[in-house]
Amino acid sequence: MLDKSRASANDRRIEALLLHREIEEFNNAYAAALDEQRLADWAEMFTEDAFYVVISRENADRNMPVGLIYCENKGMILDRAHAMKTEMFAPRYLRHVIGNLQVLGEERNGDIRARANYVVVQVLFDRPAATLHQVGVYYDKFRRVGEALKLAERRCVYDNLLVENALCLPV
Amino acid sequence: MLDKSRASANDRRIEALLLHREIEEFNNAYAAALDEQRLADWAEMFTEDAFYVVISRENADRNMPVGLIYCENKGMILDRAHAMKTEMFAPRYLRHVIGNLQVLGEERNGDIRARANYVVVQVLFDRPAATLHQVGVYYDKFRRVGEALKLAERRCVYDNLLVENALCLPV
Amino acid sequence: MLDKSRASANDRRIEALLLHREIEEFNNAYAAALDEQRLADWAEMFTEDAFYVVISRENADRNMPVGLIYCENKGMILDRAHAMKTEMFAPRYLRHVIGNLQVLGEERNGDIRARANYVVVQVLFDRPAATLHQVGVYYDKFRRVGEALKLAERRCVYDNLLVENALCLPV
Repeated sequence: MLDKSRASANDRRIEALLLHREIEEFNNAYAAALDEQRLADWAEMFTEDAFYVVISRENADRNMPVGLIYCENKGMILDRAHAMKTEMFAPRYLRHVIGNLQVLGEERNGDIRARANYVVVQVLFDRPAATLHQVGVYYDKFRRVGEALKLAERRCVYDNLLVENALCLPV
Repeated sequence: MLDKSRASANDRRIEALLLHREIEEFNNAYAAALDEQRLADWAEMFTEDAFYVVISRENADRNMPVGLIYCENKGMILDRAHAMKTEMFAPRYLRHVIGNLQVLGEERNGDIRARANYVVVQVLFDRPAATLHQVGVYYDKFRRVGEALKLAERRCVYDNLLVENALCLPV
Repeated sequence: MLDKSRASANDRRIEALLLHREIEEFNNAYAAALDEQRLADWAEMFTEDAFYVVISRENADRNMPVGLIYCENKGMILDRAHAMKTEMFAPRYLRHVIGNLQVLGEERNGDIRARANYVVVQVLFDRPAATLHQVGVYYDKFRRVGEALKLAERRCVYDNLLVENALCLPV
């Protein structure tokens, strides 16, 4: 009896480990899509009713909703992705490092709550140095759609007070 | 026979994986407590006899003990946490990214030795940019107290020669 | 039957998890060897016929082969490691943070393809601040040699346009 309950406790830990790994893999694919500026692939990582916002820590702490980017559904996210083709901005490289992933629990509807820290390093083509572009936290809700995980919500809350050189690309 | 020994080798690898994950989770909760300035929660992550020090790589390499912060037990750590309420310093955000965790082995008394690299990014409220505040290594000893892991020792050894704008908050 | 196939699907996920962990551990040991300037240990992490190159994203994107470091076998890598002893350069600390590891699949010959993002933070002994030295991606092929993993190929593709203060040490 004891052995059995110990075995099932271990099973639950392994199950949690596999979910953690799956979300980590999602985040790494997400980072790669943005770093390689494959914005159509990026948009496909959200659910139809997804909420995506990039907001300062100042505003988030005060429950102020205004953000640099604010999308209430996948249509708006796709719009954002396609707009890139016509927008004018200085060419640049971005590099995401996502760390400190925490899987926090499940919502009533089965969505999985998680958070992770992110650092985005930017290189502008007309300046030699790499700079800290944005640093913050992703507050997420993941949903399983068929076999795949999708983002039902990602709130990117950034620490830095000024986002240098405008935010042209999603975070 | 062979199958059995292979199975138990796999079990050991899974066991190691679960311990690694548990420590990673600890470090992420540690980072979140500091980033959200919940210093009472931070202090609770140490054992009663914990040793906590923040020391330059220069001094650590020469076995010089003096550090920016030096606590020989949890009382001193709690003192540090409570002092924050009365200290005056420029308001700021900190963001920890902890990576490259290595679980190194067990001490005779059962403590688990580990190390991890850390980067702390700082944003001062009166300056727009995020800067690299401190970069270094945690040299740790973890101890199991009841069900939970606690830090019996954390030596934060930082690379940068100057810690910009003082070290008001723990690392 | 169903239970059995579900069990074996889980086994495969655990197998993938263990491989992921093993490569992560490799990368962390790699980072520690470089950060502690143990270059002989670093060189031993490559296979005899290893390909190691440090190349700008600009050149890599255009299939231009020229890089800051270019080694076609372990002899050249060892040469690089030993050259450090006689070269003159300003003393410095480096700190690698390796994240976003993705295990991508297997080559025909059994090599494992992977990628990871890296950030190298540098501290020069005559300047107080830590700076972003290099930011980029490792594109890797790992090979099992006996029990151990070795690098059969590591292409370090960096984003920053200028590598400040020369690249004296490998990445």
